Amino acid sequence: MRFTIDKEQFLKGLLIAGRGISPKNAMPQLLCFKLEMTTIGLEITAFNGDVTVFTRVPLKLNEKEIIRNYSLGSSLINAHFLTEIVRKMEGSELSLDVIDESIAKIDDGNSVFKLPCMNSDEYPDIDLEKTGSTFSIGCTELTKLVEQTAFAALDKDTRPILNAINLKAEGGQFTALATDSARLSRKAVAIDSSIVFNANVSAKTITDIVKLFENNYEVEVCSTGEKMILSFGQTVVSTRLIGGEYPVKNSIIPQNFNYSLQINASQLLNAIDRVSILSSDRAAIVKLSMNSEGIEISSSGDQNGSGSEKLSTIQYQGERLEVAFNALFVSQAVKALGAEDVTLKFVGEMKPFVVLDPKDDSVVELITPMRTR
Amino acid sequence: MRFTIDKEQFLKGLLIAGRGISPKNAMPQLLCFKLEMTTIGLEITAFNGDVTVFTRVPLKLNEKEIIRNYSLGSSLINAHFLTEIVRKMEGSELSLDVIDESIAKIDDGNSVFKLPCMNSDEYPDIDLEKTGSTFSIGCTELTKLVEQTAFAALDKDTRPILNAINLKAEGGQFTALATDSARLSRKAVAIDSSIVFNANVSAKTITDIVKLFENNYEVEVCSTGEKMILSFGQTVVSTRLIGGEYPVKNSIIPQNFNYSLQINASQLLNAIDRVSILSSDRAAIVKLSMNSEGIEISSSGDQNGSGSEKLSTIQYQGERLEVAFNALFVSQAVKALGAEDVTLKFVGEMKPFVVLDPKDDSVVELITPMRTR
Repeated sequence: MRFTIDKEQFLKGLLIAGRGISPKNAMPQLLCFKLEMTTIGLEITAFNGDVTVFTRVPLKLNEKEIIRNYSLGSSLINAHFLTEIVRKMEGSELSLDVIDESIAKIDDGNSVFKLPCMNSDEYPDIDLEKTGSTFSIGCTELTKLVEQTAFAALDKDTRPILNAINLKAEGGQFTALATDSARLSRKAVAIDSSIVFNANVSAKTITDIVKLFENNYEVEVCSTGEKMILSFGQTVVSTRLIGGEYPVKNSIIPQNFNYSLQINASQLLNAIDRVSILSSDRAAIVKLSMNSEGIEISSSGDQNGSGSEKLSTIQYQGERLEVAFNALFVSQAVKALGAEDVTLKFVGEMKPFVVLDPKDDSVVELITPMRTR
Repeated sequence: MRFTIDKEQFLKGLLIAGRGISPKNAMPQLLCFKLEMTTIGLEITAFNGDVTVFTRVPLKLNEKEIIRNYSLGSSLINAHFLTEIVRKMEGSELSLDVIDESIAKIDDGNSVFKLPCMNSDEYPDIDLEKTGSTFSIGCTELTKLVEQTAFAALDKDTRPILNAINLKAEGGQFTALATDSARLSRKAVAIDSSIVFNANVSAKTITDIVKLFENNYEVEVCSTGEKMILSFGQTVVSTRLIGGEYPVKNSIIPQNFNYSLQINASQLLNAIDRVSILSSDRAAIVKLSMNSEGIEISSSGDQNGSGSEKLSTIQYQGERLEVAFNALFVSQAVKALGAEDVTLKFVGEMKPFVVLDPKDDSVVELITPMRTR
């Protein structure tokens, strides 16, 4: 295998595929990219046991020659070193030449590197065939769906199914659900397909994957029962599903509320941030005291002291109410909505409450209050 | 004690004094600032056992009132929480009021915080009297003196005297010397004083202190035998000296060389950075191969592969020579010089070599080569 390639496009391909590398993998092959020079482009594959990332650097891009002077073949080359070398080389073009199947020589006319490489027969078989239900969604929409929900998944290993985001298509709706059991995020969007689909995917993995999207890709989503495959542009990503039934249903979200507070999102975030200062924990307990005369937010850091401030609100409807909550949960929910104003709706002091975007009813952030002593 | 104070100036004072706080100090008083409201301003003191930082927020600054509506007194208040509260408060002015000697109430008209505080009698006695030899130096000059040398001090605890930078005034010269025993940095500047002075100060501490300089301060430097005191603007910093005689003399630096290489600094840095990629260590071994026909820089990462590149040089004088060195040491030395071009001068393959700024002979960076197998 040999090729001369545009440096920027090569680096871009390596950085995409790099999302499929786990740097601490115990299997030496899986620390490598599989590079394969084909008649349509250079194919780069990475696999870490759960996730496969496959991407192609095409021979030409917008009429510009990207790869020239190539001979077909394949090889396994250390992903970290190859990426760093390509990143730091100064030439606009570089050549990669595999010598005796054991050394890859990389040369930009000034710097020359020699990296050991392995025969690609030693790489596991990768199956990216889309055999299951498939539908399309815009990448911006899928990114928002993930970013507004995935943060609510459990980030500890205590209950694997809660590390997942549940993705479900049914009756023309595509719904994402994530919960760590103390809070829950749900977003539902309409899709132009009557497909039925139910997959639990690692929230961390899918959050990584949506970072690869660019331009206005349509993303083709396919679930085969054992894995979910996303195809976009020159890239295909496959991720193993988390087994078991997702333990939370849509119906957990209350529909009727007795109290409603509308407030500017950044004012709320800043106030939570300030009154949380005295907490020794990342998860400060913050209390909202609401009545028709005004809204106060406060926290007590016990022996560290206490803080409070008045909030100017857009609207409050309801009787007097005090609700205490995990500051981090409410901040993350408000940030995920990305709205100028947010609405908090309560059933009662110790019942789960919701954080909503008054202008977008596709997303609900549900949070369980905390007991204060 | 109470005062109403300009928020920005208060925060600035707290951030300066904060350099004297060690957040993991076991003594609760030393996690506090000592605040003292006097007739000339608010005095903020921090002390961590080795370093004292004292600074004053004056009543007026350029005719602008900074502090008003004050009553004299003093108190100890947690440094971290006070700084974070003042940083995050939104008002341009805030009031601090000590109630019953036990609670400090901080109020910007919107947020109100209550912090526990301690009686200032519980604070250790701080002596900042300048009893020893004293001279003045411009802060820019002192900063450069420190930044061009202190990085070469030992950063492990194995030999405390080598954690120091040796500062010596003699015969109208002020010299800084730092070494970790594998490399050495020296810089000497002329001072307008015939003072004699010899102090070993923690390289880490003095690197922190020079970051506090701003404007065109003259810094008054005083060594009392047990500590060094630096005064500048409204701030006084005192640091305990490291005992013992500094083990390295000026005379270790060779004066006559057989080989000389002049090269563009950023070209050399980039080349070292690139050929070091394959090293698994932070301290890659890099080899320079020089002769009249050309200069090559190379490294071998053993099982990881190897890299090499040609350097275009400004000038090389000498026979054929190969020298291997710690890439980090040469990179740090070149960066410390901050020059466009650098000169490397060698005695022979295994003798210490120097890195110099051809336009500034005040500073010498000496490096011991490494043996390659």
